Amino acid sequence: TKHYRITLLPGDGIGPEIITVAVSVLKRVGEQLDIQFEFKEALVGGAAIDATGNPLPDATLDTCKDSDAVLLAAIGGYKWDTLPSHQRPEQGLLGLRAGLGLFANLRPAKILPQLIDASTLKREVVEGVDIMVVRELTGGIYFGQPKGIFAGENGEKRGVNTMVYAESEVERIGRVAFDIARKRGKRLCSVDKSNVLDVSQLWRDRMTRLSEEYADVELSHLYVDNAAMQLVRYPKQFDTIVTGNLFGDILSDEAAMLTGSIGMLPSASLGASGPGVFEPVHGSAPDIAGQDKANPLAQVLSAAMMLKYGLDEPEAADRLEQAVMQVLDEGYRTGDIMSPGMKAVGCQAMGEALLAA
Amino acid sequence: TKHYRITLLPGDGIGPEIITVAVSVLKRVGEQLDIQFEFKEALVGGAAIDATGNPLPDATLDTCKDSDAVLLAAIGGYKWDTLPSHQRPEQGLLGLRAGLGLFANLRPAKILPQLIDASTLKREVVEGVDIMVVRELTGGIYFGQPKGIFAGENGEKRGVNTMVYAESEVERIGRVAFDIARKRGKRLCSVDKSNVLDVSQLWRDRMTRLSEEYADVELSHLYVDNAAMQLVRYPKQFDTIVTGNLFGDILSDEAAMLTGSIGMLPSASLGASGPGVFEPVHGSAPDIAGQDKANPLAQVLSAAMMLKYGLDEPEAADRLEQAVMQVLDEGYRTGDIMSPGMKAVGCQAMGEALLAA
Ligand SMILES: CC(C)[C@H](C(=O)O)[C@@H](O)C(=O)O
Ligand SMILES: CC(C)[C@H](C(=O)O)[C@@H](O)C(=O)O
Repeated sequence: TKHYRITLLPGDGIGPEIITVAVSVLKRVGEQLDIQFEFKEALVGGAAIDATGNPLPDATLDTCKDSDAVLLAAIGGYKWDTLPSHQRPEQGLLGLRAGLGLFANLRPAKILPQLIDASTLKREVVEGVDIMVVRELTGGIYFGQPKGIFAGENGEKRGVNTMVYAESEVERIGRVAFDIARKRGKRLCSVDKSNVLDVSQLWRDRMTRLSEEYADVELSHLYVDNAAMQLVRYPKQFDTIVTGNLFGDILSDEAAMLTGSIGMLPSASLGASGPGVFEPVHGSAPDIAGQDKANPLAQVLSAAMMLKYGLDEPEAADRLEQAVMQVLDEGYRTGDIMSPGMKAVGCQAMGEALLAA
Repeated sequence: TKHYRITLLPGDGIGPEIITVAVSVLKRVGEQLDIQFEFKEALVGGAAIDATGNPLPDATLDTCKDSDAVLLAAIGGYKWDTLPSHQRPEQGLLGLRAGLGLFANLRPAKILPQLIDASTLKREVVEGVDIMVVRELTGGIYFGQPKGIFAGENGEKRGVNTMVYAESEVERIGRVAFDIARKRGKRLCSVDKSNVLDVSQLWRDRMTRLSEEYADVELSHLYVDNAAMQLVRYPKQFDTIVTGNLFGDILSDEAAMLTGSIGMLPSASLGASGPGVFEPVHGSAPDIAGQDKANPLAQVLSAAMMLKYGLDEPEAADRLEQAVMQVLDEGYRTGDIMSPGMKAVGCQAMGEALLAA
């Protein structure tokens, strides 16, 4: 029997409901494949602010560090929007990334054939789209120093942030991206703004040098403005994309929206060693929290990414993904992905359909 | 008789062909409305590098400064792509923006009913889309100091750029945006990343304060990642968008691509006083240069923006825009916008159709 310790971070809004579904399918697949999961719950985000005043209590970070993987649901809500920004729920997320050294964020944007009509793009444009965005997650302008609001000349305030990458940071995320591209379509597109930014020139040079070690992967480069256009114009041209923290934030969300159903998209955040964090792309949806209306499928697909990228249990990951495909084929739909002729279900009923599948 | 001195910057690739068409329609509308244009040509971009070694020779900047408006065609091409980046054609563009103090970039993204099928988005999603992106153009990470590639600890290289905005810079672009929104749908969406960036917090605070002076305009805020999603999800929600230099670079191109015909989109770059620069959004298309295949319509619409925003000649601007609508209604199409049943024409023939219209 294999044994894994999983930290659960339900967070806010619909978080507790959807993570419950993910836990039930993990248990079931564990029974089937003789894998034991030991779950430990911890506080993060708004829930942690309410209980402790801190969006990422030390105890939570310790619990995470002491586990094999972290399954996170969702963070944030109107309730905490008026707090000063350094005390908001999102800081819990940024703290978790920094605290666990999660420098690689994997954001798949894959069109599911069952939901293709949910896309605002024409069917022929998005059919078969399968993009993996690899975003650097602990560097760049998110963490660069100096940062702050300073009094400038003539007393006027100036806001400052610094976008900085060291060669080793580029190399590190580059290796993750090349390795992933190698297992996919063997095409990697590095996105930067090297016609304007020095930091992007360093990024491009380092990626180009690194590509010599990955002769079987085709490396191309795009400027970020052009990448934002190309995603809309012809998304099928992309296989794997690698980019910095800020550009990755923007492009992974744009790519996600091409699918039309961001309620379906998982993500993984990985470090050099230690536990990764696995979470849905969607938010905490406070407007429907506690009403059994949430879509748990992105959370379940995040659990599948956890099995695949975090615990190296690809067989278990496949079973979860197949269960999701099957319930979609059977016509089960939560409100966010409902369409005429399909079977409307709530969060719990979707969980039961998954277990049956 | 009114009299205006116009600097023409044909630049590279298809630039000379399309600017010739714009000049001919400007002359015609000038005859009709008793406006005299005095045109003076100057070198910029690759053409200037070839002739002088400098993408923006002093003589060009002087000529621009000494005119009432600058009509620019396109800059760049493969030929100069291998030069070190500070010597490339694009530097001519950045130098022009800085040298003329062009802090406000207006980038309309408007769906033309005649070309709606060129969009990769579904008709019902893009029908009626009419967005004006107001991008700050002389500040932010494009020009912030410190910048460069430095030796860090343990000899490793680090690339650094600084995103910085002073309150007065935010106020200045904010006023332009509020004024424009006021003349349009009275809704302004300010885009930032204030949940992560200090510079964005300053941006958001200043915009919010400024909105008190524009009670008739509704101000909203979006994070840049969400804005990139919302443009794909439901572009009709936007009227006027205001944002910083880098976010504006990305979002204005994304918005442009929603229309499906970036060969049709003009832009204006304005300073506090002095001449503005008016140019198409598309590039120099070196692959079709000199073959009479280029689409001159974005250049003509840029001339219309010059008349409207640069010379305060709205009547003349309207005539140019109407001529463009008429040739489209008559079915004239260059290769980039050709569709079945339409009349394929080259650049010159399109120019003649415009004159006839
Ligand atoms: C909530 C926010 C800090 C975060 C980010 O910008 O990284 C989010 O947008 C994301 O992409 O996970
Ligand atoms: C060519 C480049 C320097 C420029 C920019 O980034 O501003 C271009 O992308 C634009 O938007 O005009």
